[in-house]
Amino acid sequence: MTILSDISLATVETPVAVVDLPTVRANASRVVEYCTDHGLAWRPHVKTHKSLGVARLQLDAGAQGLTVATLHEAEVMSRVTSDLLLAYPPVGAAKLDRLVRLPESVRLKVALDSVEVLYPLAQAVRAAGREAKILVELDVGLRRVGIPDPADAARLAAEVEELDGVSFEGLLFYAGHIREPGPERAPLMRALGEHLERVYAALDARGLHASVVSGGTTPTLWQSHELPGLTEIRAGTCVYNDRSAVSQGAAQEEDCAYTVLATVVSTRIPGRAAVDAGSKTLAKEPWGGVGFAVVRGHPEVKAVALSEEHGVLDLGPTDWRPRVGDRIHLVPNHVCVSVNLQDRILTVDGGTIEGWPIEGRGRMPAPALDSHPQDSHPNR
Amino acid sequence: MTILSDISLATVETPVAVVDLPTVRANASRVVEYCTDHGLAWRPHVKTHKSLGVARLQLDAGAQGLTVATLHEAEVMSRVTSDLLLAYPPVGAAKLDRLVRLPESVRLKVALDSVEVLYPLAQAVRAAGREAKILVELDVGLRRVGIPDPADAARLAAEVEELDGVSFEGLLFYAGHIREPGPERAPLMRALGEHLERVYAALDARGLHASVVSGGTTPTLWQSHELPGLTEIRAGTCVYNDRSAVSQGAAQEEDCAYTVLATVVSTRIPGRAAVDAGSKTLAKEPWGGVGFAVVRGHPEVKAVALSEEHGVLDLGPTDWRPRVGDRIHLVPNHVCVSVNLQDRILTVDGGTIEGWPIEGRGRMPAPALDSHPQDSHPNR
Repeated sequence: MTILSDISLATVETPVAVVDLPTVRANASRVVEYCTDHGLAWRPHVKTHKSLGVARLQLDAGAQGLTVATLHEAEVMSRVTSDLLLAYPPVGAAKLDRLVRLPESVRLKVALDSVEVLYPLAQAVRAAGREAKILVELDVGLRRVGIPDPADAARLAAEVEELDGVSFEGLLFYAGHIREPGPERAPLMRALGEHLERVYAALDARGLHASVVSGGTTPTLWQSHELPGLTEIRAGTCVYNDRSAVSQGAAQEEDCAYTVLATVVSTRIPGRAAVDAGSKTLAKEPWGGVGFAVVRGHPEVKAVALSEEHGVLDLGPTDWRPRVGDRIHLVPNHVCVSVNLQDRILTVDGGTIEGWPIEGRGRMPAPALDSHPQDSHPNR
Repeated sequence: MTILSDISLATVETPVAVVDLPTVRANASRVVEYCTDHGLAWRPHVKTHKSLGVARLQLDAGAQGLTVATLHEAEVMSRVTSDLLLAYPPVGAAKLDRLVRLPESVRLKVALDSVEVLYPLAQAVRAAGREAKILVELDVGLRRVGIPDPADAARLAAEVEELDGVSFEGLLFYAGHIREPGPERAPLMRALGEHLERVYAALDARGLHASVVSGGTTPTLWQSHELPGLTEIRAGTCVYNDRSAVSQGAAQEEDCAYTVLATVVSTRIPGRAAVDAGSKTLAKEPWGGVGFAVVRGHPEVKAVALSEEHGVLDLGPTDWRPRVGDRIHLVPNHVCVSVNLQDRILTVDGGTIEGWPIEGRGRMPAPALDSHPQDSHPNR
């Protein structure tokens, strides 16, 4: 890390992402404590931070391993753990090649939902002289990927067991359809638990058992123990938290470790102020609530419109009148996609500010693409 | 550029951004031809592509100069033109420092809307022994930045003229509130023209004249000549186009030069297919229409839900049934924010595929942040 003794948040160029490390540590400890109390493992999804430094903090706090979605995340995170789960179907020769070239120390573990993904994967793994553990992915209501029918899921698990190079380790699901808190959450959680029981029964009928049952989202984080048979949770957003996590009842405002520091650049429009953080800094993701980010310290003030490099604050609900040059911290709706827009994060740990890279960002192209980076363009 | 003779779109790892260069050239030529016909200059905003190679194509086609929003874009684009407009108020010492350190060949030209931005800028320019042309930014209805009142705008222009180091060059506005085509567009354009006339009159009353009147958006591109006194347009999206530009009547589907190539990774959910391009590839921007991207060749099929690495296609309106491993091209709602998510673009020019960097992406941090890139993290 680069210690930036000459940089202060009062003068550093904005917009810039700021991460409060004591809050990150507290967030990680809280999850580990919850998991310990309930006999669960925490395998945080690194998509939220994509940072080796933050991954190290999670592992130090007691995370069992890490979850990744891209091959680039897998390659980067293999530097800090050998216990990686690729929670994404690797389709195509390019991805399979990167998968089997992961360091030998990595115990390959992949979630998938079809023989169309399984067969080429098993072949690639065997050809590389490796082995892979397979989690069969269930659809439990989000209707994105995964197998809806319990018997179909058990059938795929049995197919896995019949192939060399791969073995059935368990089940994976993402209950992303359970978000906002409220009276409708309890029946959804109950229905999910009943669905899992049906899958366990279907496996049992084939003489199979799921050693791992991997689920858990940040919105439902603290209810994870209600799900029968769950062994690990992958909740990732909880390390930083964001406006959505707070609205979903999974975190308090003070648990938001990540903010975007922005500067007021115009106050010409009555009742509004424009800052230099727009959709290329905060991400313009629709959300149940108003606007795309909230001002820390002025929770009544939202960024109600985002252009690419402008955020427009609605000052209607406040007497606060920021001036050109003032600096504010914004908490985005969805932290993961905001992090993905940053060159780096500035970490704050008491009086120490450091610049941390976001090593897992991007996709690190196939070697041929980068083989001659020095002559990448004639205009250089 | 790296010529990727061994890469084909049938095997390259997805998701990846693909740009059809003949379409880019045709789009650029069409704008230049329109501008020539109407006595306008084209100063495309590079925010759309952030690529030196594409900027060069625009300049070769006849663009007069380039528009930038960030200091990093300015630094990068100073390599291909000396005629740069910073259409963004540079607030804070860090940005001013980067501005005045632009190569001496660059004639500094900046848009701003207040003395709070003007005074420190003029001071920095003088201290560096340079000069800057100033465009006074108007608000014409978007309510983001800019001066709503014509007399106030003329007053700021007069303030500029009284300061050393800066001079009043003209006016800038962004009519981002005029988007969808339809019967409401004509009166909006007329009102905008009348507003401009009032600003000209207010300037005239102070003995001032706008040599440059810079406006023009992609949605209103082909109506730019209806605005009295306009001298240049900054339309940027028109070089690539996207789903919004088509819906706004500014382009045809075949004018969309940029697509995201994605692979089908799951077809387990009846009536749906999941691809490996999600919000971290396409950007999840709300839009007037359904979904976040449309499938090229199957315009009835939209990506109706995006997770970070998953795009979910709704197959309800089609008999087409893609299979796992199939590759599709997606046209995003808003191309600029999708480009900003890519490591690079693959350009296709007949049979030649090249990997082009996106040099203007990111913010290139202050020097102190990158002074020791080699020890950027202890885990390396």
